Amino acid sequence: MTQQKSETLPRQLALLRATEFHAALLEQQLIIPSEVRGCYGRGAVFEHILECFDALVMRCDEARLAEKMTFPPIVARRMIEELGYLESFPQLIGSIHSFFGSEAVAREMAGRAADGQRWEDLLDITEVMLLPAACYPVYPAFSGLLPNSGRTVTVKGWCYRHEPSDEPTRLQSFRMREFIRVGTPSVVEQWRDEWLLRGMALLSSLGLPVQRDVANDPFFGRNGRMLANSQREQRLKFEIMVPVIAQQPPTAICSFNWHQEHFTSKFNIRIEGGEGSTPAHTACLGFGLERVVLALLATHGLRLGDWPPEVLSTLRIDASLT
Amino acid sequence: MTQQKSETLPRQLALLRATEFHAALLEQQLIIPSEVRGCYGRGAVFEHILECFDALVMRCDEARLAEKMTFPPIVARRMIEELGYLESFPQLIGSIHSFFGSEAVAREMAGRAADGQRWEDLLDITEVMLLPAACYPVYPAFSGLLPNSGRTVTVKGWCYRHEPSDEPTRLQSFRMREFIRVGTPSVVEQWRDEWLLRGMALLSSLGLPVQRDVANDPFFGRNGRMLANSQREQRLKFEIMVPVIAQQPPTAICSFNWHQEHFTSKFNIRIEGGEGSTPAHTACLGFGLERVVLALLATHGLRLGDWPPEVLSTLRIDASLT
Repeated sequence: MTQQKSETLPRQLALLRATEFHAALLEQQLIIPSEVRGCYGRGAVFEHILECFDALVMRCDEARLAEKMTFPPIVARRMIEELGYLESFPQLIGSIHSFFGSEAVAREMAGRAADGQRWEDLLDITEVMLLPAACYPVYPAFSGLLPNSGRTVTVKGWCYRHEPSDEPTRLQSFRMREFIRVGTPSVVEQWRDEWLLRGMALLSSLGLPVQRDVANDPFFGRNGRMLANSQREQRLKFEIMVPVIAQQPPTAICSFNWHQEHFTSKFNIRIEGGEGSTPAHTACLGFGLERVVLALLATHGLRLGDWPPEVLSTLRIDASLT
Repeated sequence: MTQQKSETLPRQLALLRATEFHAALLEQQLIIPSEVRGCYGRGAVFEHILECFDALVMRCDEARLAEKMTFPPIVARRMIEELGYLESFPQLIGSIHSFFGSEAVAREMAGRAADGQRWEDLLDITEVMLLPAACYPVYPAFSGLLPNSGRTVTVKGWCYRHEPSDEPTRLQSFRMREFIRVGTPSVVEQWRDEWLLRGMALLSSLGLPVQRDVANDPFFGRNGRMLANSQREQRLKFEIMVPVIAQQPPTAICSFNWHQEHFTSKFNIRIEGGEGSTPAHTACLGFGLERVVLALLATHGLRLGDWPPEVLSTLRIDASLT
């Protein structure tokens, strides 16, 4: 019982703090209310901070050298099926369905909706699903034989995860700035290690009390716990975290994934080697852009005027907003 | 027969031109291939042009004065139902479904997908659908009694329309920069008229051979033709067009919609008047950002180095890319 109590109280406090934080964000017009949980709009100041942080990341030498690609928030259904996403994260998917029927069926559908009845059985699937991670569409573009030096790409995109929540840092739809490296295993691992240091330094320079740790993805079910343990044991995922809602657990604002051959084997991505070609490795890192903004607001206050001047100047925040 | 022939030949030529244009965009790495029609990625130069055009729009005095809001590419299902979108555009919707089941059902779902069988009957609806127009989430934020001067908002967002096509200007997922005005009927109409002139001038300043005309939305079915005719007769929709794929029909790159009380009646948006309050009107205009980029590429050529210097300088295109 003692153990149960000691788990419950911090959770209740975190829930209270989440509710208070959400209310304060609304009151300051940093966010715009929505009737759907995890789906709020971003006000002008929130969005400006987000853009300034993204621009700061993109001013790094390593970011400027990356190839820039941009993808829509939807992705081929077949890709989600083939990458094993349905096994690992079925609870997070967003499958897109549309209407292919006649005028008579359309009238029935609209009529049912007007009467508050269910109408979705009249739909059929499209070829697309919602993009769960900004980097997914990049991997097919690597298919084939790459030069030994590999490639580095950056994307900024909207991701969807079906996890409705009142917690302001857990959004159903959010943006990630990602960097993706494909190359030989040693090149990819070193790149990941360097970005881990760079990410820590960059976020620390904004006064954020960052910590980093080995982490795991939210794999589904009992089988998922095994996958999560294996991912931790192999140290394939790291996260940089900052207290936002609570000191414990802090909120992940940047994550690093070393996929090894997960993507390269599916898309036949190979690297030129001394003696013929070898399978490539990939790794990626992503800044959760809304979460970085929320971490900054939680750390420095909800009014830009209260922020440390050096943070405002590092981010090049528009002085008229402070 | 003569009439049928004269319709068919231009259509065949347009199809050929669309295929050639798509191939040329791919070859110049302006776009990145996708296995799904209307779902290609945007290369670095394409995206830079898009960002430069959006920044040009946002440098207008009228744009800078607008309140900035940002919304995710998903919207409350209830809003789509209540706004009559299912009656008017059922063929364009994107309904988002996810997985709410047990581990056993998740295993069945993943197994079916691996065997190439259908698995979507194991899903259920979420509270959200894809956003069909960037301005939709703005209207609920206006609810209530507004000052007599009304409000002006700008948003940039990803829109979804289920209309898979090989025609590069017809995307399933694309961005719009929109401006939305709420106010008294006369204020709103005048604002729309001024933006029509401003939009023509702005696009002309980029060397685009623009024309404008009354237009209609792609309402569904037989009933939809009546709605379209009524919309035209009342001159509620205008479009600015540029030849991209063919001289005829040119491609709409900016559209203007005067909704009258369509949104304000649903969300109870009223305006302070001399004697009590009156129902407000709304209007919006949207630049189809990908279409503007494609119009610029079709007009000035696929290499930035070939573009007129004054267009490059008006857009503040990064000289290192030319």
